[in-house]
Amino acid sequence: MIGSLSVVGLGPGDQNLITPEVSLAMLEATDFIGYGPYLKRLHINKSKTLHASDNRKELERAELGLDLAYSGKKVVVVSSGDPGVFAMASAVMEALDKGKKEWKRVKVSVLPGVTAMLAASAKLGAPLGHDFCAINLSNNLKPWDIIEKRVTHALQADFVISLYNPRSVVRPNHLGKILKIVKNFSDNQRIVIFAKAISTEKENILVNLINDVDPNLADMSTLVIIGSSQTKAITDTSFVYSPRSVL
Amino acid sequence: MIGSLSVVGLGPGDQNLITPEVSLAMLEATDFIGYGPYLKRLHINKSKTLHASDNRKELERAELGLDLAYSGKKVVVVSSGDPGVFAMASAVMEALDKGKKEWKRVKVSVLPGVTAMLAASAKLGAPLGHDFCAINLSNNLKPWDIIEKRVTHALQADFVISLYNPRSVVRPNHLGKILKIVKNFSDNQRIVIFAKAISTEKENILVNLINDVDPNLADMSTLVIIGSSQTKAITDTSFVYSPRSVL
Repeated sequence: MIGSLSVVGLGPGDQNLITPEVSLAMLEATDFIGYGPYLKRLHINKSKTLHASDNRKELERAELGLDLAYSGKKVVVVSSGDPGVFAMASAVMEALDKGKKEWKRVKVSVLPGVTAMLAASAKLGAPLGHDFCAINLSNNLKPWDIIEKRVTHALQADFVISLYNPRSVVRPNHLGKILKIVKNFSDNQRIVIFAKAISTEKENILVNLINDVDPNLADMSTLVIIGSSQTKAITDTSFVYSPRSVL
Repeated sequence: MIGSLSVVGLGPGDQNLITPEVSLAMLEATDFIGYGPYLKRLHINKSKTLHASDNRKELERAELGLDLAYSGKKVVVVSSGDPGVFAMASAVMEALDKGKKEWKRVKVSVLPGVTAMLAASAKLGAPLGHDFCAINLSNNLKPWDIIEKRVTHALQADFVISLYNPRSVVRPNHLGKILKIVKNFSDNQRIVIFAKAISTEKENILVNLINDVDPNLADMSTLVIIGSSQTKAITDTSFVYSPRSVL
């Protein structure tokens, strides 16, 4: 009998942010596929089979998942955050689209989760309180000039901007380049937030004005939120919000 | 003693998409504030005090919540989806910013949830699989020309676009106007998705090409996703995805 594959979102880290739907799917699964550290944080029952992998091999993981599911396993592919936001759902769909024809007989589902920008926004108050966008700063799979073009249009549209994967060891200067573009569109009141490892023990939040931001303080576990022209801090509190009204 | 106020996200409708963090906050609350139908769907214990209101009076609800919390209550303000995405978190922050000074002594928290576009994206596969934006089509609180400008920049940036509040009785023509703008930027392969009442009994999903879309089929419970130029349907399945790579 053919099995199933669920791509599940673990949320930002705190177990209390995992939906019951995802918890149930993990309970019923026979096989887990994911980036090693994500699997580790789940304390998975020893009766399950784990397939840990490198973080960059998304398509291989998706193909392995579909093969296992086709062979009859109940497979869970884990993503941090939400699987549909710069995570495993798109890779599984790509494998389904371009891979073995028989994979289309597998029961595939995607189970949503709390993505990093929603968790960060909640901790901070409501910085995403109005129109916003999400941009992945990794140029592994797209040319750098497209990233710059998107950021520029987002600033012209006055979106709040969430930047995923802002900085890594192999891409140390991306965020700095983007912040230079942001500066050209800003007065000195533009708010920039670094939200690191939200809801985990390593959680750390920095709220700065654009001229005081040090891009070197961001890393792969940081979600960067660039406020719109309207985003503001609330005095005597730690909160930041984007008003519902546009002036 | 001063109480607390939590703004909580109920997700798209299915109880299994409510995080344990939110469930716990609702269990501990003394007072619930929210739009009548949202409160109704919660089957709240009769020991709690309910404050149901009209959907448009966000700021009044926020102020009531802060007053009750200041007087010692444990208040929960409910939003559907995620409270930070076109929902109650920004209204509560606005009240905190502009209202009574003593409200800043209330313990305020925002508890994230699964917003409509993530739930819709999950059901469909991975249409948000790459850079995307979210735009509220209601012009109650912003001028219409800003909405058109934002949609135009989003198309130029080739974002996937989620449209919240696409259409209502008092704004029957907004979505049609926006779809005309989209057409001008599209070949006839552009995908447009209407995701209605996701995860509820009334769930209904329409996937169309831009030239075949009827804006009159959308309503207030519909989340519209406009694909990027790369978004595609997978043959022999009901899935739609945006590839991780940009060509």
